[in-house]
Amino acid sequence: MKQIFYIDGNIEIVKNGQTFLNEKRVALLKHVKNKGSINAASKELKMSYQQAWHFIKEMNEISPLPLIVRQRGGSNGGGAIVTKHGQIAIKRYEDITSAHKKFKEKINATFDLFFFEQRYTVD
Amino acid sequence: MKQIFYIDGNIEIVKNGQTFLNEKRVALLKHVKNKGSINAASKELKMSYQQAWHFIKEMNEISPLPLIVRQRGGSNGGGAIVTKHGQIAIKRYEDITSAHKKFKEKINATFDLFFFEQRYTVD
Repeated sequence: MKQIFYIDGNIEIVKNGQTFLNEKRVALLKHVKNKGSINAASKELKMSYQQAWHFIKEMNEISPLPLIVRQRGGSNGGGAIVTKHGQIAIKRYEDITSAHKKFKEKINATFDLFFFEQRYTVD
Repeated sequence: MKQIFYIDGNIEIVKNGQTFLNEKRVALLKHVKNKGSINAASKELKMSYQQAWHFIKEMNEISPLPLIVRQRGGSNGGGAIVTKHGQIAIKRYEDITSAHKKFKEKINATFDLFFFEQRYTVD
């Protein structure tokens, strides 16, 4: 049976009603981790440096410990690193989204979503 | 322990990438069911009649059977009713969101979200 209707949706980690981590923000963290640069990470994600920096500033402010720190000087004119705290935050977020993915798969498998395709319901 | 970080997020029912049911749409269905009128339901939800009708048209088009049908004439100049199919759709959606709420509660209880509040992580 090809399932046509399915449930979808993303979760995010929130503090006092303010978004802390979501898919886009964690993608940003991971790109900074890989590239060692906020500028390179923002290009990778097709967002402006200002937007990327806004997200990072917000995450760092919400978190008790910074997730990303900027480094000055060096041959590349300064870069950015994801702290150990930031790396654990990425891992926690991915554990949660992985559990959420399994939840959605379970719902799609066990709920009668096929109902929405029934054509014989009679009023 | 007061939990400060928590996961949040809503699910929706999708067909071929197009939103079929979400929180707002199901609220609309329920208000039409209670009021017997799209106009009254849209006012209740502080949306325009055009917006409400757009949502209803889209749901009816995506669904194999209509969720809402308009009735002409009568003492109130015509109203709208939620079909039996629509009523079952509301119930299915609420079963799913209820399961999703439990999922979020379980994650919030079992995952170490408190981690994000730790101040002693050392790089």
